[in-house]
Amino acid sequence: MPGETVEFEVLDASGGQLGAQATLDDLRALDFGLVNPVTGPVFVEGAEPGDALIVEILEFAPSGVGWTANIPGFGLLADEFHDPYLKVWSYSGDFAEFLPGIRVPVRPFPGTIGNAPAEAGQHSVVPPRRVGGNMDIRDLTAGTRLYLPVEVPGALFSVGDTHAAQGDGEVCGTAIESAMRVTLRFGVQKQANFQAPRFSTPGPVTRHIDAGGYDVTTGIGPDLFEASRDAVRSMIDHLGREYQLDPYDAYLLCSVAADLRISEIVDAPNWLVSFYLPRAIFQ
Amino acid sequence: MPGETVEFEVLDASGGQLGAQATLDDLRALDFGLVNPVTGPVFVEGAEPGDALIVEILEFAPSGVGWTANIPGFGLLADEFHDPYLKVWSYSGDFAEFLPGIRVPVRPFPGTIGNAPAEAGQHSVVPPRRVGGNMDIRDLTAGTRLYLPVEVPGALFSVGDTHAAQGDGEVCGTAIESAMRVTLRFGVQKQANFQAPRFSTPGPVTRHIDAGGYDVTTGIGPDLFEASRDAVRSMIDHLGREYQLDPYDAYLLCSVAADLRISEIVDAPNWLVSFYLPRAIFQ
Repeated sequence: MPGETVEFEVLDASGGQLGAQATLDDLRALDFGLVNPVTGPVFVEGAEPGDALIVEILEFAPSGVGWTANIPGFGLLADEFHDPYLKVWSYSGDFAEFLPGIRVPVRPFPGTIGNAPAEAGQHSVVPPRRVGGNMDIRDLTAGTRLYLPVEVPGALFSVGDTHAAQGDGEVCGTAIESAMRVTLRFGVQKQANFQAPRFSTPGPVTRHIDAGGYDVTTGIGPDLFEASRDAVRSMIDHLGREYQLDPYDAYLLCSVAADLRISEIVDAPNWLVSFYLPRAIFQ
Repeated sequence: MPGETVEFEVLDASGGQLGAQATLDDLRALDFGLVNPVTGPVFVEGAEPGDALIVEILEFAPSGVGWTANIPGFGLLADEFHDPYLKVWSYSGDFAEFLPGIRVPVRPFPGTIGNAPAEAGQHSVVPPRRVGGNMDIRDLTAGTRLYLPVEVPGALFSVGDTHAAQGDGEVCGTAIESAMRVTLRFGVQKQANFQAPRFSTPGPVTRHIDAGGYDVTTGIGPDLFEASRDAVRSMIDHLGREYQLDPYDAYLLCSVAADLRISEIVDAPNWLVSFYLPRAIFQ
């Protein structure tokens, strides 16, 4: 019913396989058939194809336990980071400690949030689509208003994959993956005919992390994907030189805290991707 | 000489062809042979291939006159925006007015800043390279420290193409193009062996524009370039619906004020690009 507030119990992206006591063996034994469960679907009365489902993101009650992993075969540098690697987080309040002296601000959002696609058949939950899904947009935090294209009657909305923190890009493939209770309110914008999701943030999106400025690396070339890989590789190099982080720790830290931006996409044939690491994470 | 401060007189990207009185006819008559002049080169003693030239960006004295244009054949949506279109700006202080009720914070930086490449021959100034050049990184503002790979003895540094403001992406192909005096100080980091430019900002990079939050559109798909185009198209649609801007004005405003970010680059086969428009530009 439009205007109704709904609470969702959301599992972490492992579906409970990686908890507070998780080890590398648990990561190696991960059953991918259980990965990225979503809670739903919710049928919203009056939502019809062509409309936008309005989702007001009201509140998160994070579990305080989370994990970040390099899962072999997954992630932007999967061809270079072959080994399983796991960081288990225990957090409360505003920060999550990565290593002594390095802490990441907690800023919860749902990695996966979307409507059902009209296309018949089963659909992998991994790729996002125009109806939303596994979008991993780290600014879908409390107070944000999200507009999701509706393709089937009632929208058939689901949410899952809650994250305690993530950088733009989610470069290693995982964020701070963490179960949470999520409170949402629904509305409908009739005949919005949006091509893809849109959203509106209530205020600034980086002030929790930008006070110390940024160290930035770049990647330059005709392919934005390869330029992104270059920028991330250089940041891992930077974190090794300046903070003595080993490459796997650096890769995971980039994924939860650093932001990929497209600085220019018009100076043919070379585009420029910048990767912004906020220095405020270092104490 | 390392440690030395140098003042550069920088022309605008048109090389003075588009001044305070410029018209569409001047834009149509633009001589591309004069476009994007740079001031330099400066030979920095002690800079050798493999080193990084350290450029401390100290100060800008903007001219107060600028232009933004859709130049046919140039820009992210060149195949859809065929007509020449020109906005001439006159600004002083912290803001530049785009239209009544819409103003963009002034935050000067050099669009083009770099060293000479080692490769023999003439090189177009349009694409950026690993030695820098036309990078259009809008956060190279006063107080920033830039590290540029050196490929030839003395680095042979140049700077040009100063901008009074730009969004990440520079999507229409031009920023607020504006002549300025730029003050820089040089240093050398021996044998840095960086693959591409890096930089370090002294503080936050969006607080001048983020107070009102953002309206955000997205593009989703297997190609980051096409996803970026989709996100920009949706923002132009949004600016038409919500603010009654015609498409050309919306396109230019996006270029000087909105930011392309890569929200996720790991949920194969679809990546997600978000385009952030700061609402603070609307009064």
